[in-house]
Amino acid sequence: MTAATSDEEVVLEALATRRRLIDEAIDEELPVEEPARLYEASRYLLEAGGKRLRPAIVLLVSEALTDTVGDEVDYRAMPTCDGSGTVDMMRAALSIEIVQSFTLIHDDIMDDDDLRRGVPAVHKEFDLETAILAGDTLYSKAFEILLETGASPDRTIRALRILATTCTRICEGQALDLAFESDNDVRVPAYRDMIERKTAVLFRAAAAIPAVLLGADESTVESLGAYGQSVGEAFQIHDDVLDLTVPSDTLGKQRGSDLIEGKRTLITIHAARNGVNVDSLLSANPDEAEIEAAVAEIETAGSISFARAAARDLVDDGVGQLAVLPSNDATEQLRMLANYLIERGY
Amino acid sequence: MTAATSDEEVVLEALATRRRLIDEAIDEELPVEEPARLYEASRYLLEAGGKRLRPAIVLLVSEALTDTVGDEVDYRAMPTCDGSGTVDMMRAALSIEIVQSFTLIHDDIMDDDDLRRGVPAVHKEFDLETAILAGDTLYSKAFEILLETGASPDRTIRALRILATTCTRICEGQALDLAFESDNDVRVPAYRDMIERKTAVLFRAAAAIPAVLLGADESTVESLGAYGQSVGEAFQIHDDVLDLTVPSDTLGKQRGSDLIEGKRTLITIHAARNGVNVDSLLSANPDEAEIEAAVAEIETAGSISFARAAARDLVDDGVGQLAVLPSNDATEQLRMLANYLIERGY
Repeated sequence: MTAATSDEEVVLEALATRRRLIDEAIDEELPVEEPARLYEASRYLLEAGGKRLRPAIVLLVSEALTDTVGDEVDYRAMPTCDGSGTVDMMRAALSIEIVQSFTLIHDDIMDDDDLRRGVPAVHKEFDLETAILAGDTLYSKAFEILLETGASPDRTIRALRILATTCTRICEGQALDLAFESDNDVRVPAYRDMIERKTAVLFRAAAAIPAVLLGADESTVESLGAYGQSVGEAFQIHDDVLDLTVPSDTLGKQRGSDLIEGKRTLITIHAARNGVNVDSLLSANPDEAEIEAAVAEIETAGSISFARAAARDLVDDGVGQLAVLPSNDATEQLRMLANYLIERGY
Repeated sequence: MTAATSDEEVVLEALATRRRLIDEAIDEELPVEEPARLYEASRYLLEAGGKRLRPAIVLLVSEALTDTVGDEVDYRAMPTCDGSGTVDMMRAALSIEIVQSFTLIHDDIMDDDDLRRGVPAVHKEFDLETAILAGDTLYSKAFEILLETGASPDRTIRALRILATTCTRICEGQALDLAFESDNDVRVPAYRDMIERKTAVLFRAAAAIPAVLLGADESTVESLGAYGQSVGEAFQIHDDVLDLTVPSDTLGKQRGSDLIEGKRTLITIHAARNGVNVDSLLSANPDEAEIEAAVAEIETAGSISFARAAARDLVDDGVGQLAVLPSNDATEQLRMLANYLIERGY
């Protein structure tokens, strides 16, 4: 890379390279079996795209810990920190992406969202029954795949423990998110607790599981987990910002959907506490002009700036945790990725 | 027990004793945490009852293998076959029952069934969103709990592998079951394949996982798995018989629901191939007289007898597999339980 390359260009290139490999691995590890319709539905959102942020974190942490270079490393056989063997980190990466995909399929049913990644949600493209089952199938596949990384039994069990408790926390977070829709008095700590479970724990798992599988020491596992959690919370807060500020076409889903569905976000909580009547800002089918007016009112209260500042603080905290890693390209990319998560335009 | 005690009385007593302990363990291992509504929904069907057949198989296999006596054994610390330590077999039993409960919650949504175990289905008692999430929560809890039996890491991983692939197969089986509703040409082998995945694999897991965790030899694991699979298929076939022959009050759900929903069963496949127009036998809301008439027409074709005979053959096969076990009370109860599965009145 040249000195003129921006951090964002480096991140996008790092993501693109790993994304191609992750996509290949999806085909290898999650082929269409019988019954084909079930597996097609299970793969539908995975094939529709996505940035593969979480699996990229798994791969980058693996590279950073083992001091290997992305272009040369064999993700299927990465050396452990103590030289005791090799681990298939691509499978670890996939298991995280598969959990993410399962939660999207079920969340879209619960939120009755029609669009995801610019294509119909699975329960719209297929049907409710198939969407429930597709999510359930991905759920067990994530465990099946994480069981077969070739890591030692002890480390594999620790990684599975993280995956299982992460899935439980995600369900709890989604339950809280739904409950908040009919609660006009959600405060910032409750919201932070909700997104920690709903979103941040999977980022935490993405950063901690590779450290566990590769046999990093405890303090490294803990710091990487804290990195994942902080940038995961920041990611969710920025996602809430994007929901209001980016056109539907770019988002791949309805702009302003959080306001329409009555979701509580850092933005709406701040706005409500600053005199904005957030539950009556938008009609059920707002046009762009109506959304623009709502956003202007919210920003008059300073709520979007407030959310952006909170996300920035979290990213700074997360980047600070990277001090446990060796100085190398992957560590640098994890730093840039953290910033990218709150600077990305969609 | 006295010589006059019937096999069924012995089985019911064995189930009742273990059921009390299993129910206690549910309270211990699956307490109501926050958000309380989510955990209440997750526990709702578990609290509504059920025979605890699958966890009872886990416990009985554990007793049979370790030659221990049900009234005296500590299921939380059963000695391994090689004396290398102890394993919490109650957790293994619970993980199987929790998977069963998760599949019931999601299946009831897919089949739009209103009643289960005599109480409203979870999506009726709570709502669709909560029912999906309650199933998803139980799913990860089953893995969390099976991770903590205290068995060796190698054996734990083997058990988790069985659990994960079992869950995948159950999803495939349910997908096939749903697909068959709009397929007028389902043959017996396809039906058998469907119930193997949908129902029998979990019985297989219930019998094989304790053998794996306790370190039984490979041929014992395999024979016990075969026992579970055979009696599991027989259980499903008998369930299909009961759906037609037992009043709704006793079933705890609508009698004839398979016919109403267009489910393919060994009975309807046999009847269809013997000239009965099974898809027009019942209206959407049949009374008992209409169901009686339908059942009479089906039995004229010999279809219920055909299904009963198939279930009997499977149970005999399954019981034959028990020859690998030592002769003791638990082995005898596993034999009686297999027979009970196809003789029970509900």
